[in-house]
Formats: sequence, structure tokens, C-alpha cells
Amino acid sequence: MKAEIIAVGTEILLGQITNTNATFLSEQLASLGIDVYFHAVVGDNQQRLEAMLSIADTRSDIIVLCGGLGPTEDDLTKEAVANHVGENLVEDAPAMEQVLQYHVVSQRPMAENNRKQGMIIEHGIPMPNPAGLAVGCFYQSADKTYILLPGPPAELKAMFLQETAPLLQSHFPVSEMLTSRVMRFIGIGESQLVTDIADILNEQTNPTVAPYAKTSEVTLRLTAKSENGTTAAVLLDEVEERIMRRVGQYFYGYGEENTIENEVVSLLQAHQRSVTCAESLTAGLCQSTLAKVPGVSNVFKGGFVTYSAETKQQFLGIPAELIAEYGTVSPECAEAMAVYARNKLKTDYALAFTGVAGPDELEGQPAGTVWIGIAGPSGSYARRMIASRDREYIRISAVKYGLNFLRQQLLIDHQK
Amino acid sequence: MKAEIIAVGTEILLGQITNTNATFLSEQLASLGIDVYFHAVVGDNQQRLEAMLSIADTRSDIIVLCGGLGPTEDDLTKEAVANHVGENLVEDAPAMEQVLQYHVVSQRPMAENNRKQGMIIEHGIPMPNPAGLAVGCFYQSADKTYILLPGPPAELKAMFLQETAPLLQSHFPVSEMLTSRVMRFIGIGESQLVTDIADILNEQTNPTVAPYAKTSEVTLRLTAKSENGTTAAVLLDEVEERIMRRVGQYFYGYGEENTIENEVVSLLQAHQRSVTCAESLTAGLCQSTLAKVPGVSNVFKGGFVTYSAETKQQFLGIPAELIAEYGTVSPECAEAMAVYARNKLKTDYALAFTGVAGPDELEGQPAGTVWIGIAGPSGSYARRMIASRDREYIRISAVKYGLNFLRQQLLIDHQK
Repeated sequence: MKAEIIAVGTEILLGQITNTNATFLSEQLASLGIDVYFHAVVGDNQQRLEAMLSIADTRSDIIVLCGGLGPTEDDLTKEAVANHVGENLVEDAPAMEQVLQYHVVSQRPMAENNRKQGMIIEHGIPMPNPAGLAVGCFYQSADKTYILLPGPPAELKAMFLQETAPLLQSHFPVSEMLTSRVMRFIGIGESQLVTDIADILNEQTNPTVAPYAKTSEVTLRLTAKSENGTTAAVLLDEVEERIMRRVGQYFYGYGEENTIENEVVSLLQAHQRSVTCAESLTAGLCQSTLAKVPGVSNVFKGGFVTYSAETKQQFLGIPAELIAEYGTVSPECAEAMAVYARNKLKTDYALAFTGVAGPDELEGQPAGTVWIGIAGPSGSYARRMIASRDREYIRISAVKYGLNFLRQQLLIDHQK
Repeated sequence: MKAEIIAVGTEILLGQITNTNATFLSEQLASLGIDVYFHAVVGDNQQRLEAMLSIADTRSDIIVLCGGLGPTEDDLTKEAVANHVGENLVEDAPAMEQVLQYHVVSQRPMAENNRKQGMIIEHGIPMPNPAGLAVGCFYQSADKTYILLPGPPAELKAMFLQETAPLLQSHFPVSEMLTSRVMRFIGIGESQLVTDIADILNEQTNPTVAPYAKTSEVTLRLTAKSENGTTAAVLLDEVEERIMRRVGQYFYGYGEENTIENEVVSLLQAHQRSVTCAESLTAGLCQSTLAKVPGVSNVFKGGFVTYSAETKQQFLGIPAELIAEYGTVSPECAEAMAVYARNKLKTDYALAFTGVAGPDELEGQPAGTVWIGIAGPSGSYARRMIASRDREYIRISAVKYGLNFLRQQLLIDHQK
């Protein structure tokens, strides 16, 4: 099966946004055994989009479109595809109900053009939008498949994973089964990981091993071709074992949509342990990251944002002398923040962050220097992280490293 | 002039890297007055690339190619374009000298393949590579211009800015200049904004007005064509005034890269006011958003994450009776959180968030119900926000609305 991805949006052609949807879709389609031969981007112009569809018909079996499903007059992907295949647009009742409900619940007036978001191509399969209002559509003509996805990346990802991937698997089953396993790593850069397992990457043909750099983490996608799931598991286990011998210390979990916060909250819940945080340079980012996980309230009750030296004293009770002696960007301060926060809230664990987000240096230490304090039932300590790049990248890296340190401590404390 | 950008590289089609070169080139070409109508990506395959060039010839005047200038067998962009236009590849003496010198200086053996990096299309203009070895090429046929740039972003950017942009300016001088202004809005959805200014959007040809939906906010890009900057400013001011009369209450600032946190921190700094936060459902997201702004430590010292009812009492001192009477998801609780947090830290302002992030309802209220408390020198109150979609979207929306409420209060308090 040959596929191509057509992104619709003048803002991409103006350079206002980057076509990251094509990256996500390419990776996902590859994992389903579908070869992507072309990407294309076209503006919000029905005539040019239809011309593009005619080109795509000559060279691709599956045409994935993203963007242009919204309510405005610029949004005309559905109209263009419907016209191209000679169908009408019809209401999808559940989607239309969702659009109506949204306006009732949010008490916003509903404009007539909002109804467009609940329409699909006649004879197409609706793909509900788990993260927004515009319904997607999976439409098959005699020999082509058109897949219409929304442009906002959060909506596109959720819809693809929940709706599109299962439809593709059932309509285009691969003769040899493809089984993928995604391994996730924190604490090692992509280039170092690729160097450390260079021979594995080069030798492997089945499973294939593909590295992807994400924000402050790296994933490896292992994909095995096999006749059944058991053979695949054996193939994947073998190469995973080789990889783990090299870089196992950086591995934290499996899964395309998995996150370090999911792993940490699951462990805390499984062992009925609670956590709090004291955050300086991260300023609440670790706590708001933990709170992304539904049900976190069992294990997390609250915590502290101690951005200044004074709030470290006032909120946590850290002695002024300790800060005066070691400075705030120090292992001593990080450890004390964790210990005092844990005592204040009587939690099982506490995680603390202090360091230099930049752009300027602080206390003579360069931007990117971060100390992470961990306190738990078996003691307390601080670990250092060094990151480069910009302020936000340093803060996100600190949170991911810190949560991974907590995960490691949780495993040590509960390994019996 | 109509342009299109063709990126060559199988790794883009596999989703291993994102086509950020197209973003950069689009923005640069727009600023030179050249309209980009299409992006395309094709793999490292000469036949498919030549087919793509034939398509491009039918619809574009300027065809910008990036990638595939390297020394390996996969690199075949020069060969494909030369074949397409019926020319030979010839050595560019200065570039070949650079390739030879590199191998001498770095003491690396030079493979025969490496000579490819010093070749250009016969009758083309060489574009020296300021950041690498592969020479670029600017080639004009009777009615088309082909521009060959290297794939690595650092090389592409340096070559475009130093070599390509001056060539384009001299070959395609623009009579009119383009001036853009971006207006940012919070508190109104894209579809409502578009409805409210539908006639302006439809009537306008100069300036053009283009809406973009961002996460929990909307921007309008106004772009004027004019002979000079003064005329442009007059044109932009006129349409901005019309827009402000309709939806000015939701406007918060200008600029493609601007944010509500930048606006709030600037106001706090300008008036030497401090702020703290007490966050329940947002769990630190507002504080970590404020801390994205460099230099925030002048106006923000720290704050509270009070996820549970108990921490609202323990950290802030809110009476248990108040929570028992009104519940935590209430205007009374939101206002109290702000008032008590402000008193605790002796700040000028405090912002508090309490509500239901979901997925489940809380205290009989549906996910998406958020109360935002504001306390300041002129008093305290709570405002409601209703959001839908997923947990993370609700939390991000709450933070943006809350910061915008604070911005409005700061303007009221300092309007004299």
C-alpha cells in the first residue's frame, strides 16, 4: 500500500507553523506497514486542493489529509474531497450532537458555520474527535481511500490512534504481521544512544530498530515482521535484550503514548505511596505534570513553589544559614528542600528542584545546572542534571529527569 | 511569482525528522514577496523526484529543492534536476577546492563520491556553502528557476541568507513591500471571532486578515501590501480599529511570538507589583507558565499547589467551615484562596484556580467548570470559566483566562 499525506493550510505555506502532523502520521503509517511515498502541503484553496487530489490519485492508494475540518470559510477539505469523489456532505448525528452540546455547556452562541464540524462525506465512516469538535472521515472509493483528519495536533493524534489506526488495520491487513514495541529512554541523547547501539541499528532487518528524538527523551521503535504474535514477541525480546545490555540504565517504560508521569503515578498508586514537591526553577511544572494523570489525587495532595530564597525558608522552614552557606543552587539545598517538604506534608516521598533556568547564570553557575533532591522512607540525597538549549527545555528536562529519579527510588524501595 | 518547496529525503517520509526547512524557507520567501503555493516531500528516488519536478513545472515559477546534495548514493537531487533540464553536471572549481582542502586538513581519506559535493548543474550559478561542503546551485531555464539547497538546517539557513536571498532579490525585485501585524485574543473561540468580523474578513484585500486558532487563544494576522512602511501602518491601523470595535474586549497583545504571560509579567514589572498563586486543578501550571518569562523573579517569589481540601486549609489557612459550606469548586473558595494566598505572602496580587479538570465530575459539577479568584489592592472577586475538551486543555485554558483576568485588573488599577 502506497500512501501520501496532504496537509491543508495556508499558515504552513507562510511558514507560520511547521507540519509536525506529517511527521507523526509518517511514523504511525510506517508502523502499520503502509509506505509513505509523498508529503504535500497546499493552501486553503479548493481548486488547488482538488488538483492535488487528482495528482495523488495517480500515485497513491491511501490519501491522508489533515487540516481544514474547522468551521470557518477557509476550512474546505471536506468540500474538496466530496466534490472530487462525487459525493455530498451529510450530517453525522453523534458529531452534530457533540457540537450542539459544546455550545450549550460552554454557554457560547453557536454560529451557523459551526454545523460544518458535524458533517461528513456521504457513505464515509465517521471518525469521532476525542479532543475537539470536528468529526473526521474515512472514505473509500472503488480503488482509493481518503482519510480526513483535523489539523490541531492534539486532535489529530487522538483521532488517529483511537479511530484511524484500527480502521486501517482492518481494511489493510498486512500478510505478515507487523508488531511494534516502543521503548522509552530518559537521560541519554539521541546521538549518544545511536552511537551506543550503532551495530544493532545497522545489522537489524527483522525487527527493524528506528530511533526518534522527543523532547528530553528518546524512543526506539522495534518492528518485527512475523506470521504470528508469538514469533514476533520472541524476535522483539531478543533485540530488546541486546539493547538493554547497552543502554538499559536509561530505559523507563514502553508505549507510544506513555509518559514518565504515568509510570511514576502508577507506581505510587500500586504501592499506596504519596508524594509532594518543592520547586524552584521548575516553578510548579513537575506538579502540573503529575496532575496530568487522572486519579492522581490519591497520591498527590499539594506542594510548594519556592522560587526565591525567602519562600524556601518561609514555606519549608529551611534554615537561612544552610542557604547562606551552600547557596540555593547546591545539592545541600536541593536535598533540604525535599526533606523539609516531605516533613511539612507527611508524605512518603518528596521531589525538589533547584537550579539555573537561564538565560543568565546564577550564583556563579551556568544556565542548565540543576540539582534534584529526593527524600523517601529510605533516606534522602541530591542528583545533578546538566542540560543545554533554552530556558523551557532546561525546565522540562529537569522535570523528566526528576520524575525518573523518583521512579528509580520507588523501584528500589519496593523491589522485595 | 509562485514558488514551491520540494524537500528530498526518505527520513522525512519515515517520520524520523520534521521538515523544518520548509517552515524556514516559506517564511523567508514570503518576506521577499514570493508566494509559496505548495510544499512537497519525496524520498531519495531519482524517478519519483523527476516526476515531482514535472508536476512542479506545471504550477510554479520558482522551485526550491532542499536535501540530497551530499556525497552518498542516496544523494541524487543534482542528478535529477540536471537530467530534468537537460544539462550536465560540471565541477565548480572553488567548491571542489573546498572539498579537497577539507580532506587534507581533517586527514580523512577522500572517497570518489565526495567529488559530487563540488559539482553543479552546467550553466547554473554556484552558491557556496558557508557551513558545509556541498555547493548549492541557482539554475534558470527559459521560464523556470531551480534552487538547490543542502538538507542540514544549519547549512540551508546560512546558504539561503548569504547566497540565495540576494540572488532572488536581484532576479525578482518586488515593487510592493509586505508588512504584517499579529493581534492576539483570549476568551473567544476562532469560530465566534470569525463570525463577529465576517464582513471585515470578506471585504479585506489590502490588508488581508487571516485568523489562526492556537491553544485556548486566537490570532489574527493583518498583512498590508504597500510602497513604504508609513502607508502600511495607516492601512493596518484602519483595519485594526474596525476589528477592535467588534472584539476589542478579548484582545490582549501583539506579536507572533507574544504570550499572555509576557504581557502580565511586563505589566507587573512596569508597575513594580508582585503576584502569587494558589492552584488546585491547575496544580502549578499557572506558576510554571509565569516562570517561562526571563526575569520573573522580580515580581514572583513563589506560591502554593493546593490540590486537596486539606492543603487549602493547611497551606493557606482557609477555614474548614468555608469549604464545608460552599465546596471547593465555588466562587467563595476561589476568592478565599486568592485572599489567603495574598495575605500569606504579602504580595500585591494573587490568582487562584479551583475547578474540575475531569474526566469525572466533582462535587456534582461537570468537568470544565473552573472558578478563578483574583485578589489585589482594590479588592477581591471570583470569575467563572467554562471549558470543554480534555483535562489538559481545560487546565491550559484556565491558566490563560486567569492570566488575562489579572492583566485586566492590572490595567484597571493602573489606568491613571
